[in-house]
Amino acid sequence: MLEELKEKVYRANLKLVEYGLVVLTWGNVSEIDREKGLFVIKPSGVPYEKMTADDMVVMDLNGNKVEGKLNPSSDTPTHLELYKNFDSIGGIVHTHSSWACSWAQAGCDIPAYGTTHADFANGAIPCARGLTEDEVNGEYELNTGKVIVEEFNNRGIKPNECPAVLVSRHGPFTWGKDAFNAVDNALILEEVAKMASRTQRIACMYDDAAIGIEQYLLDKHYQRKHGKNAYYGQTNRG
Amino acid sequence: MLEELKEKVYRANLKLVEYGLVVLTWGNVSEIDREKGLFVIKPSGVPYEKMTADDMVVMDLNGNKVEGKLNPSSDTPTHLELYKNFDSIGGIVHTHSSWACSWAQAGCDIPAYGTTHADFANGAIPCARGLTEDEVNGEYELNTGKVIVEEFNNRGIKPNECPAVLVSRHGPFTWGKDAFNAVDNALILEEVAKMASRTQRIACMYDDAAIGIEQYLLDKHYQRKHGKNAYYGQTNRG
Amino acid sequence: MLEELKEKVYRANLKLVEYGLVVLTWGNVSEIDREKGLFVIKPSGVPYEKMTADDMVVMDLNGNKVEGKLNPSSDTPTHLELYKNFDSIGGIVHTHSSWACSWAQAGCDIPAYGTTHADFANGAIPCARGLTEDEVNGEYELNTGKVIVEEFNNRGIKPNECPAVLVSRHGPFTWGKDAFNAVDNALILEEVAKMASRTQRIACMYDDAAIGIEQYLLDKHYQRKHGKNAYYGQTNRG
Amino acid sequence: MLEELKEKVYRANLKLVEYGLVVLTWGNVSEIDREKGLFVIKPSGVPYEKMTADDMVVMDLNGNKVEGKLNPSSDTPTHLELYKNFDSIGGIVHTHSSWACSWAQAGCDIPAYGTTHADFANGAIPCARGLTEDEVNGEYELNTGKVIVEEFNNRGIKPNECPAVLVSRHGPFTWGKDAFNAVDNALILEEVAKMASRTQRIACMYDDAAIGIEQYLLDKHYQRKHGKNAYYGQTNRG
Repeated sequence: MLEELKEKVYRANLKLVEYGLVVLTWGNVSEIDREKGLFVIKPSGVPYEKMTADDMVVMDLNGNKVEGKLNPSSDTPTHLELYKNFDSIGGIVHTHSSWACSWAQAGCDIPAYGTTHADFANGAIPCARGLTEDEVNGEYELNTGKVIVEEFNNRGIKPNECPAVLVSRHGPFTWGKDAFNAVDNALILEEVAKMASRTQRIACMYDDAAIGIEQYLLDKHYQRKHGKNAYYGQTNRG
Repeated sequence: MLEELKEKVYRANLKLVEYGLVVLTWGNVSEIDREKGLFVIKPSGVPYEKMTADDMVVMDLNGNKVEGKLNPSSDTPTHLELYKNFDSIGGIVHTHSSWACSWAQAGCDIPAYGTTHADFANGAIPCARGLTEDEVNGEYELNTGKVIVEEFNNRGIKPNECPAVLVSRHGPFTWGKDAFNAVDNALILEEVAKMASRTQRIACMYDDAAIGIEQYLLDKHYQRKHGKNAYYGQTNRG
Repeated sequence: MLEELKEKVYRANLKLVEYGLVVLTWGNVSEIDREKGLFVIKPSGVPYEKMTADDMVVMDLNGNKVEGKLNPSSDTPTHLELYKNFDSIGGIVHTHSSWACSWAQAGCDIPAYGTTHADFANGAIPCARGLTEDEVNGEYELNTGKVIVEEFNNRGIKPNECPAVLVSRHGPFTWGKDAFNAVDNALILEEVAKMASRTQRIACMYDDAAIGIEQYLLDKHYQRKHGKNAYYGQTNRG
Repeated sequence: MLEELKEKVYRANLKLVEYGLVVLTWGNVSEIDREKGLFVIKPSGVPYEKMTADDMVVMDLNGNKVEGKLNPSSDTPTHLELYKNFDSIGGIVHTHSSWACSWAQAGCDIPAYGTTHADFANGAIPCARGLTEDEVNGEYELNTGKVIVEEFNNRGIKPNECPAVLVSRHGPFTWGKDAFNAVDNALILEEVAKMASRTQRIACMYDDAAIGIEQYLLDKHYQRKHGKNAYYGQTNRG
């Protein structure tokens, strides 16, 4: 069942290791088959070097395991909540990558400081509000998803214009059209988070250094890559 | 004698190199066989690339060498003191990994800033008090162990709820159920130490950034992984 | 057509990956054949591991594609403008390497703090002024090149004495006698940018630490490597 | 002539690359044969991947090339001056490793903050005074050596108790009993320099964090590894 998707999700999980975004059993990747209403996700707590494609777990959209010997990632309810609410996304990644987690632990949005960021997201990467004690002690992982969705709704951010979020005190979730795209976005987020902190560190040495990308430059870069007249890459240009 | 354990301790030592936690001859790993009352530890000052399983040294709990051509790690009396006082641990690691050492050199506890930390330890990673001049000039390595045990006792920290300590001006010791688990904990400690410093650096750029994980979120993460109803991983969930 | 040059530019692009200066499809390298009035550049948005020498794109100095199935890098007009105005250069590189981008995002020149810098450039690495809204909304990539040239002219910097520039909010361009030399300069710039920030961080801990290389020491190092009596390396000394 | 030593110096130079201490053609290693009054050093400006053992250059103690097709490292007169004045040393290394250079560029000694440092040197790593304009414009590389020797003499530091120095605005030189030992010391210096800056960064977040290793702890660690009753490693303990 969904053998191709299980193979793909398995390989996307290994990419997290290759990109240096996870150690030990940390992190997880999933991808959804919207037609079948099923998604495939990494099992919980299995070391990457022992994992096989066959260990991937198939879930339905009610949160029931449909196939798989192992328990799915403990973050599965978060993935499910995002798939239900963000129609346009096909793959989700969670990591504890160091720079993105550090911004999340500080509880701060990652400001848009340059074109590397603007090529990725149409504004700051939001850090969602912290969960309340009740939310943590209740259905914690589900509530993590709800708080992310709430933050995007409250701020009017479209998930396809910002493929990443920080969960306060915790770490990043990223998404994309499929599992590999979500993994690439996890890598870009880490680069953007690292550069943002370094930019602050450099600027704070100068009295007159003003940081923050100009809105027209952010728009230009975001649109040349993701807008309807995009001309970056090979697909949108004759 | 204890050939399997020597092989295991040898491979656990090599993991320190693979994980980037040691250079040259730095660091050491041991594991205890509680039934036999013996532990196996890395020899002192031997380069990892020349070391063999046969070079591992077997010690008894009186600190006598039972087998081995080479001198044991100079930190052997510290390992011994920890095995004697922390009943629940089976393996010990000492490294000079950069971020953990930097916190130790600063003489500061690593505060619990996020869930990566909470998945690892049930509170701050303590930095033990510095040794007095007499303690240093006496049985230094033994006294290092005594000060660690004293710190855990004084603060009421259980070794199995916090698998790491910082020795002031020196560096980290970590432990676990066996040698490999202690090595994994050395890796996690380094990640946690790095993130904690980066979190401080990001937060200090903002007037209103309050850091420190909420107690209920720390409890949730620690318990979902290590508590009696833990549901992270494959062993505790149906 | 220009098969050798395409092979060379292809390999120079791969060097960016080897040197850790790019991830995913980021970065681009070109080299010009001044006699033929043509330059070869990386295609836009193609992953390095799928790219072949045959994918390189040949452009003329009017900005027309002369050969190639794929779209050239979106930064092609910037390369063209630099080739037109900086006669002495034969290869150009653009990356989003982390430290150089962080200085660019901060909008700050990289000051000359030591001999590593002085071996590379005859003064600070300039951060060009930001583009205006009109410049961004007009021929953006061409205007990026114009602003770089303007900055060098206004400051009286010779391109062959400073093989790098920072584009404000964006990142670095480097150049050299050919594609490989420009790639080496991208690597050196990243090292210099990293050291400069670390130097500031160390010095800011001391009340009396004055940083900035003395002019006579900068001159000495720059001249011993690049001056007419240079004696570094194998070519200028008997 | 000196074929074995040339092979050894060649391999020691490659260790600099393996340890991540140099890029491109940066850095150089030498070793002296005190009986013959000759030393072997890396040629100037040759990429490591193209270098062979046969490219090593043999020099006498008057600074004359005795054998070799290529020019010796431009830093050769510095090596020579150190060999002449520091009787106990057998190998010398110069790198532009990032953290050591950053301390040198800041013009600051690396303070002894912990036991990693104390295992290496019997006090702070000195940053020598800057060269005067006359010293730079005269026999620059020779004067660099003279200033290092002067600094050690003025401060009463013995070269065998501190195997490293920082040259102001420039970078580190390290030494040891032979070429490989000097390379190991270059690696340790970089680790110590990195940890020292990170220690400062952590401590500066706290009002009451006092840094600086206690003298008795520094003495203990230095002596247990390098003193006459040393018991670290395999050579000094029964």
